[in-house]
Amino acid sequence: MRAALLGATGLVGREILRTLETRRFPATEVLPLASSRSRGSRVPFRGGELEVLEVNADSFEGVDIAFFSAGSDASRKWAPEAKKRGAVVIDNSSAWRMDPDVPLVVPEVNPGAMAGHKGLIANPNCATIQAVMVLKPLHDAAGLVRLSVVTFQSVSGTGKEAMEELAGNSSAFLSGAEGAASVYPHDIAFDVLPHIGGFDEDGVSEEEWKMIRESRKILGIPGLEVRCTAARVPVFRGHSEAVTAIFERAIAPEEARDLLSSAPGVRLVDEPSKGLYPTARSSQGRDPVFVGRIRRDTISEKGLMMWVVSDNLLKGAALNAVQIAESLAFR
Amino acid sequence: MRAALLGATGLVGREILRTLETRRFPATEVLPLASSRSRGSRVPFRGGELEVLEVNADSFEGVDIAFFSAGSDASRKWAPEAKKRGAVVIDNSSAWRMDPDVPLVVPEVNPGAMAGHKGLIANPNCATIQAVMVLKPLHDAAGLVRLSVVTFQSVSGTGKEAMEELAGNSSAFLSGAEGAASVYPHDIAFDVLPHIGGFDEDGVSEEEWKMIRESRKILGIPGLEVRCTAARVPVFRGHSEAVTAIFERAIAPEEARDLLSSAPGVRLVDEPSKGLYPTARSSQGRDPVFVGRIRRDTISEKGLMMWVVSDNLLKGAALNAVQIAESLAFR
Repeated sequence: MRAALLGATGLVGREILRTLETRRFPATEVLPLASSRSRGSRVPFRGGELEVLEVNADSFEGVDIAFFSAGSDASRKWAPEAKKRGAVVIDNSSAWRMDPDVPLVVPEVNPGAMAGHKGLIANPNCATIQAVMVLKPLHDAAGLVRLSVVTFQSVSGTGKEAMEELAGNSSAFLSGAEGAASVYPHDIAFDVLPHIGGFDEDGVSEEEWKMIRESRKILGIPGLEVRCTAARVPVFRGHSEAVTAIFERAIAPEEARDLLSSAPGVRLVDEPSKGLYPTARSSQGRDPVFVGRIRRDTISEKGLMMWVVSDNLLKGAALNAVQIAESLAFR
Repeated sequence: MRAALLGATGLVGREILRTLETRRFPATEVLPLASSRSRGSRVPFRGGELEVLEVNADSFEGVDIAFFSAGSDASRKWAPEAKKRGAVVIDNSSAWRMDPDVPLVVPEVNPGAMAGHKGLIANPNCATIQAVMVLKPLHDAAGLVRLSVVTFQSVSGTGKEAMEELAGNSSAFLSGAEGAASVYPHDIAFDVLPHIGGFDEDGVSEEEWKMIRESRKILGIPGLEVRCTAARVPVFRGHSEAVTAIFERAIAPEEARDLLSSAPGVRLVDEPSKGLYPTARSSQGRDPVFVGRIRRDTISEKGLMMWVVSDNLLKGAALNAVQIAESLAFR
């Protein structure tokens, strides 16, 4: 099996390479691709280094699986070329996610959606993946009807430059200087920005719409009621989410803990009185979606509140993409 | 008029002194008090310095207004002594807030509650003050029935040591070292902790209960449905809140903006497509409660979502306490 990786030099691209390696993905070759800007740079893989090639339509000749992680424009341009040459594209951008012909897949949640793919499978938004991982087992047990999510998202979701800006501006702030804001509209150091993606005319952000629409599609609940506020926090890696979920029937916190403690890919960390709950830093570099602070909603007896954390570059991006590829490869 | 200030060396105590000064509060004298630990330290006031005295029962002889900002234990111990000597206590701790005999006051929201005071008026929790400041004008217009708040709270709410820990641990992290966690159970640098105050047996934190109970009392809506998740973020000063409010009748975002743009103590900052919304850092050192990102709830047509930010040491603490004192002094 031959694999290609478009966007090999990005944060997610590098994590895809690392994940392919650590999970011993059975690719005989992995072709690292990028725009002309990154041509010739080298990325570590399987103990050596691979030279990054500039993408063109012929790059996908003979490729079985193509991971795309270079943004929506690149996905729109190159996915049709890759498909035409017989590759199955696993796309980490938002370009095709809501296309009714494209499966939007979290393997633990809706593996069946992959069956009818037409050469393109979309990897959901990071913030959505971690929410549905925890909601799915609860939905199966009690029927999810309503969802409120407030996100605390790390800057690595934006990319390397954002991580550098957070580090540089934090240092500047601590030494009494003023950092410049270039990646974000305001200096993110020691601040919170309720702004992820552009705003529509009603004032809802793109990231908030992704949570609303993608959760419905992945969970297969077209009528799911969803509200979301998405905020960027000065954290390098790991997204945290305050989640309230309302079900058809009441589900006790103890039952939810039982269900989640055996859910695939989910790790229960829930002894708050001992200081044990998930946090972004404790999730960094780890595969699971962590859940804790599970408690009864103080408004609805059919509601649960919880705190959901995951490494946005792993289960939120690279790991989920590689798991999709594994489902294809081992089918 | 003679005033006393218990907790004069704390973050809030110093802001009370500054606020008394800048608002030209008509006290002929301000007596700075603290525990024996701070005896003899000096605090700036009206261009000079005041020497801090160790508190004892006789400290309150001849005092008209006593600001308390030294924690619940000190309030429980000294408030009865101050009252006995004829002082009116304005207490910033949580010791007496839910006592039915004690008014819990935000002057713009429920000034009438002060009328029947018995020598003690409680200053609400910082996170609650900024929420009710924005909710009150909307409640008057449309009838608030349900409230969901997720907080992003700065470390200055914990005190000076927490600000030093955030600065020190952030520096350590940026230089590749590991900071120690002493004020918080985990290192707060570049992380988010869903943990403010202790947890009850159902897993709800003290800070979350404050939002639930205090908002009902201040707004005078005993049956108000409230849920809250309170989280600490690596921000020095300024609390941010994602607020969803459901009303008896639908209230359009445009109407809410009209109401809030003329609400006392509230500042509307709401042009998200131009990058204009409130943020913690932009609120620092400023009096108003800032509100933006006002939008229709994507679940309930009778709901509004918004982003509420304020300097937790000013309107969230010192300014509100001094405003209460002004209401007494100028009555």
